Amino acid sequence: MNRYENLANVLGERIEQGLYPAGHRLPSVRVLSTEHGVSVSTVQQAYRMLEDRQLVEARPKSGYFVSLLKRRAELPAVCRNPQRPVDISQWDLVLAQLNSRAHVDRLALGGGTPDVTLPTLKPLSRAMARVAQRTDLSALYYDSLDGCKDLRDQIARLLIDSGSHMDAENIVITTGCHEALSIAIRSVCQVGDIVAVDSPSFHGAMQTLKGFGMKALEIPTDPVTGISIEALEMALEQWPIKAIQLTPNCNNPLGYNMPDDRKKALLRLAQAYDIAIIEDDVYGDLAYQYPRPATITSFDDDGRVLLCSSFSKTLAPGLRIGWIAPGRYRDRAIHMKYISTGTSATQPQIAIAEFIKQGHYQTHLRRVRHQYQQNLCVMTGWVNRYFPQGTRVSRPQGGFLLWVELDEKIDTQKLNRLLEPDQIQISVGAIFSASGKYRNCLRLNYAQIDEKVHEPAIKRVGEMINQMMMMA
Amino acid sequence: MNRYENLANVLGERIEQGLYPAGHRLPSVRVLSTEHGVSVSTVQQAYRMLEDRQLVEARPKSGYFVSLLKRRAELPAVCRNPQRPVDISQWDLVLAQLNSRAHVDRLALGGGTPDVTLPTLKPLSRAMARVAQRTDLSALYYDSLDGCKDLRDQIARLLIDSGSHMDAENIVITTGCHEALSIAIRSVCQVGDIVAVDSPSFHGAMQTLKGFGMKALEIPTDPVTGISIEALEMALEQWPIKAIQLTPNCNNPLGYNMPDDRKKALLRLAQAYDIAIIEDDVYGDLAYQYPRPATITSFDDDGRVLLCSSFSKTLAPGLRIGWIAPGRYRDRAIHMKYISTGTSATQPQIAIAEFIKQGHYQTHLRRVRHQYQQNLCVMTGWVNRYFPQGTRVSRPQGGFLLWVELDEKIDTQKLNRLLEPDQIQISVGAIFSASGKYRNCLRLNYAQIDEKVHEPAIKRVGEMINQMMMMA
Repeated sequence: MNRYENLANVLGERIEQGLYPAGHRLPSVRVLSTEHGVSVSTVQQAYRMLEDRQLVEARPKSGYFVSLLKRRAELPAVCRNPQRPVDISQWDLVLAQLNSRAHVDRLALGGGTPDVTLPTLKPLSRAMARVAQRTDLSALYYDSLDGCKDLRDQIARLLIDSGSHMDAENIVITTGCHEALSIAIRSVCQVGDIVAVDSPSFHGAMQTLKGFGMKALEIPTDPVTGISIEALEMALEQWPIKAIQLTPNCNNPLGYNMPDDRKKALLRLAQAYDIAIIEDDVYGDLAYQYPRPATITSFDDDGRVLLCSSFSKTLAPGLRIGWIAPGRYRDRAIHMKYISTGTSATQPQIAIAEFIKQGHYQTHLRRVRHQYQQNLCVMTGWVNRYFPQGTRVSRPQGGFLLWVELDEKIDTQKLNRLLEPDQIQISVGAIFSASGKYRNCLRLNYAQIDEKVHEPAIKRVGEMINQMMMMA
Repeated sequence: MNRYENLANVLGERIEQGLYPAGHRLPSVRVLSTEHGVSVSTVQQAYRMLEDRQLVEARPKSGYFVSLLKRRAELPAVCRNPQRPVDISQWDLVLAQLNSRAHVDRLALGGGTPDVTLPTLKPLSRAMARVAQRTDLSALYYDSLDGCKDLRDQIARLLIDSGSHMDAENIVITTGCHEALSIAIRSVCQVGDIVAVDSPSFHGAMQTLKGFGMKALEIPTDPVTGISIEALEMALEQWPIKAIQLTPNCNNPLGYNMPDDRKKALLRLAQAYDIAIIEDDVYGDLAYQYPRPATITSFDDDGRVLLCSSFSKTLAPGLRIGWIAPGRYRDRAIHMKYISTGTSATQPQIAIAEFIKQGHYQTHLRRVRHQYQQNLCVMTGWVNRYFPQGTRVSRPQGGFLLWVELDEKIDTQKLNRLLEPDQIQISVGAIFSASGKYRNCLRLNYAQIDEKVHEPAIKRVGEMINQMMMMA
């Protein structure tokens, strides 16, 4: 990214975040040139980019103003949820989305894949190659059941950033966060049990509940502050809930970070009703704020939180290395780990431990967080520009996923079908609900965007939505 | 291994297999020298080794004879099983065995680890290193849910040797055979269901039943012909059994290959009672016979067999790459795969596919099978020599595991405790039963034996057993 794009993103972000309200006069070219240490022509190019994105209007002899035409999109609405636990459906839709990975010609705009092409990941590839050719063959044997001590030590160090101080003994390595969630759920629940979930919620975790015969109770969730503590308390009074499963940081799909006081309130509630919390922190290290937000686990003083995470979003999903810190449920979690995959693959664990130990993890995180934050601004700009008025958009605080709420008349499953000839696919909202809500929503991935490819694609999606609106 | 050791093993094996009965005159030194194209002194050294193992007696001026002192050990007895389904216990013992992997100073004589030090595995390490450093980064992304097409194609080719002709579409890659078994069980059973198992049976598969809340019905199993069809039929008449779970080829721990007619009879029984068969074939490619024995799957004409396997025993367990061919249960199996680990790790799949495609798999198999067959002979010799009279020993037809049945007075869990100061550990028999039978049995691993280390260790175990016999 060159200087003017960089500057355009910084300004665009400030506009999107409401720092400069609609109609407000923006700093002059000269002021920005001095402030950012760039040439006047760089600032002019940046302003022209923002004009293209319809974020900015140039008024002759007056300067640049925040566009009045395009107001900042509203946040998605808090859903009204069914007041009872439900069997989870939507597997057919989840499967359709997973199978679409095989269509290499199709542009998947909504998947969960991070950018793995950055040069800051190269040391990891080199570490993998080194480990593969070691003369010490221990990496070919069965690992210990809880995983390589070296990697668990490194993870324990990383966890300090999220406020947790735990020993390597409290961590069990898993085959991705999927296995961590699966172990967590089976460690605290039985068939038929009710689990409270944030809503919208990660489809993989909900499908796990389905696969093990549990019911989900979807709790209304605010797009800025997260799961409603009040609604959760009402649900706890009414139903024999066994656990709460949620993603409080860099939420998938809404992107919020729950404020610390709400995390603590949630924990107190779990203590009062003596239930477990399954905390998915897989995007947590990708928070845009520094230091990264605390986990609920970091406030946990009686071991009732099972922390689940992985390197799939921060490094690369193809490695399949995750972990669980199961708290007081460790014994049961170890049994569940043994019967789901035995031990975990050894070589990638050793390579990742080396990568972290040598400082490459933090370097990569800084690089990738910066990119995601910039891309968010670009993607939000496109959605504001090409999607119909009234579209609601999330304001992610981390990660690389945008949640978009369309007019109630739009069914995004139908939208996907209409987009098939264009070889474009979005993630349909319905899979983020146990019972198929959010049919008018979609998820977009902005991890890695190429303006030449993605802008026309988002534009095309917008056109199709507009067409559907007219037909409705 | 040098020439005389090699020859000693060949002769030893013939004696163990009863080709030369006790008291029988063995071929003369000159005849063997000509037959095997080795020097007379090599044959003499080989005979001296066999004398040391008490398999052969030299009679002055008459030649060498099969020892009368040491008769061939009897086979383990067929167990009398409880006539009812039971909840599976023994997790504490399984965990103790798994945790012992962390004691690097301790000699584990009974684990499930193959020899990964052979030069025929080198091309795999090189392939892993190549894949790690590819400029094509697709291996870092999420794989498709059923795994890499290239690897599934290669597995489909390998399956032809076991009599199966199936497309890559029928195969789903898993994180080791553990995940394959876990998927299979959850694809056909619910909590509380009864599963018939061979007995003794692989503890990992039984612990999976335990973890998912199923009951096991242990079916008497013959150490040569496998699970009793007659006892199974009686059980099917009496109980609402949902599936049969067994290892018909190179059985763990007994080592038999079920004859084909019994495999077919088992399948017919499953068809008559309309139940599923979970076939664990993880050691099948390590059968000593050529061609390798057929799977039950190869006779299956209505998709009721779920074939589970992996490269953990043939290549290396640390890779964690296995597969399931779930037959008619594919849809459910795919859901179970998704919720247990998401997708599988990509890099090792690509590397293994290359390794097979380039012919290295068959080369390695030939090498390793030969070694295991030779080691079996050595290990059986040691057990015959150092364990008390009356010890019963299995006669494995493949793999690298020996099952030893001691006097009923001996508890192998106690034996293990007594062996702790010697830093030696065997696998206790109790973990191979759902209900803790086989307390007087143990499993030995002969994949990789170093005479200097393993012979004294087996001797020590024998001494300890003799001491226990005297104390009993």
